[in-house]
Amino acid sequence: MTFQRTYLDYNSTTPLSSQARSAMLEVMNAVGNASSVHWEGRWAKGVIETAREQISESLDAPGSRLIFTSGATESAAILLKDRGICCSRVEHPCVSFWCETNLQATENGEVKVTEPSKSTVQLANSETGIIQELPENLYMSDVVQGVGKIDFSFQNCGAKAVIISAHKLGGPAGVGAVLLDSSTEVFPLLGGGGQESGYRSGSENIIAIAGFGAAVEFEIKKLNEGVWERVRELRDYLENELNYISEDTMFVGRNTFRLPNTSCIVTPNWKGETQVMQMDLRGFAISSGSACSSGKVTSGETLRSLGFEAGLVDCAIRVSLGSETKKEDIEAFLKEWQKAYKSNKGNIRKQ
Amino acid sequence: MTFQRTYLDYNSTTPLSSQARSAMLEVMNAVGNASSVHWEGRWAKGVIETAREQISESLDAPGSRLIFTSGATESAAILLKDRGICCSRVEHPCVSFWCETNLQATENGEVKVTEPSKSTVQLANSETGIIQELPENLYMSDVVQGVGKIDFSFQNCGAKAVIISAHKLGGPAGVGAVLLDSSTEVFPLLGGGGQESGYRSGSENIIAIAGFGAAVEFEIKKLNEGVWERVRELRDYLENELNYISEDTMFVGRNTFRLPNTSCIVTPNWKGETQVMQMDLRGFAISSGSACSSGKVTSGETLRSLGFEAGLVDCAIRVSLGSETKKEDIEAFLKEWQKAYKSNKGNIRKQ
Repeated sequence: MTFQRTYLDYNSTTPLSSQARSAMLEVMNAVGNASSVHWEGRWAKGVIETAREQISESLDAPGSRLIFTSGATESAAILLKDRGICCSRVEHPCVSFWCETNLQATENGEVKVTEPSKSTVQLANSETGIIQELPENLYMSDVVQGVGKIDFSFQNCGAKAVIISAHKLGGPAGVGAVLLDSSTEVFPLLGGGGQESGYRSGSENIIAIAGFGAAVEFEIKKLNEGVWERVRELRDYLENELNYISEDTMFVGRNTFRLPNTSCIVTPNWKGETQVMQMDLRGFAISSGSACSSGKVTSGETLRSLGFEAGLVDCAIRVSLGSETKKEDIEAFLKEWQKAYKSNKGNIRKQ
Repeated sequence: MTFQRTYLDYNSTTPLSSQARSAMLEVMNAVGNASSVHWEGRWAKGVIETAREQISESLDAPGSRLIFTSGATESAAILLKDRGICCSRVEHPCVSFWCETNLQATENGEVKVTEPSKSTVQLANSETGIIQELPENLYMSDVVQGVGKIDFSFQNCGAKAVIISAHKLGGPAGVGAVLLDSSTEVFPLLGGGGQESGYRSGSENIIAIAGFGAAVEFEIKKLNEGVWERVRELRDYLENELNYISEDTMFVGRNTFRLPNTSCIVTPNWKGETQVMQMDLRGFAISSGSACSSGKVTSGETLRSLGFEAGLVDCAIRVSLGSETKKEDIEAFLKEWQKAYKSNKGNIRKQ
């Protein structure tokens, strides 16, 4: 018996790239605490500084500071806690948790910012892929979903600080970073040993940091080689074919600037949660909302703020492709989705 | 040219055990966000719950809650921030950072607790290895250095909550946990996706968590098999031999209950920092203080609170053994330490 799975949920988490895996394995075979002064400690420190350089260079961030954290959630807390920053409802919960969610989004998903220096705006939405143009002097941007998939230069992006996460671009979960310009002041969330120049205490997550650095470098290289153009064509092919199968099906943000890999698909009268389960049984991993806590579907906020009614919001799925996704994967998905769609339609008629 | 190194700094960080490495490799070859509902997500969730069970069972913590964190520093912050908890000066900086350091230690290193429910006391000191008897109803204990090296039962330890770290017992850095009984209330430090039952948001550090679970299980198995008795003999042999070489040399806490692997060695007129560098050049990794931030030697606080004068405090080194440490390692260390000692003595005479 073969157990074939097709993973189409890259915006939730990505497989480790072989570059990240190799970097991690090298560190796993060594020993050393980056705070120790002996050879092993200096070697560990070197691993961390190499990763810091890989990320700073890949993201065009000369002269900026990079603080390693346990992920985007901690990065967001460092920059947003007790700061009175504003955001819109399309932000990830780890951002909106600390903010006043009073910024409005147009029906095209464009967030309207009035005071950039007191606002945070995501670069790209995890559920729809909609890309924001960041205003100058923006306090912060969550660039987790954009980095690696679209061109990004920290020094030209408009934001004074950004948060990134390794496991969305071929690195391991459990590590992320804050990247900030020299004018932005931050206060440590964790105190103690004084690591990361005092901004983030705690023995450095050295295996994951090594993987993070290698992953970012490799993803930016792939981006520059144009791998996402092929993915964009695959995504567009998916959407066109789905439209042949179901004329009623809508694609959120289809006429806006979107990530090349993301499709947010709304099929009336067919619940997203049901689709996820049906497609899972047929061997496909997709999502009905930004994966962030067990069983919690958060797509509601994003689609509602784009003007979708509650009935339609419940009918959304997200299919997110990776640079390894093949045309066969999409064709297999289309074939099984069509079967499930027809069976669902039959069920509706019977009711 | 061979490049031989002998690692004798296990209290700073340990090499990955092969059990931890295997568990991590398995997860590195998979993909899945534990918050996703599809097969890959449920598999990831299973990995995390397996690790949680491995740790809870190994530490005899039935019915308790275990929250995975990015390490002991974050675990301490979750339990101690804004709580007005008291501690002594021998605590690790990630603990004392949040506390009033008004508890006194005797010359034997025993911490005197007046109000257990408002105090935190470490199980074992990272620099001296001195073990504390925890009072009943203690609010918290940092058991990072003790777990895996001495018998430990969470439900019988006296503390209502403890913090642990993976990289001190054969797991990776960047992951730790809070273990707490059902009566202790904690408040999340990180908000957002609501992972870890809402107590710790952020995509789970799944690779490291898998390694953590396997590492704890293996360390407790080794402990029960008595591996540390051999290490204790080696440590005692080291101290006896050092005393033959240098009659003036003192061993902190030698007459108290200590971890079996730790020796805090004070040799008058020979600075610890110098010894660390001299022994590093001779191929040995040892420490002059608890490794927690680059270049910062924190042993001062601990030894001062035990009554050592400033001049002697500066002359302390820490040699900490692992279960893999061999008698040859200790003999090689003794040989080189003796040479360095004589050369230092010659230098003092010349002055």
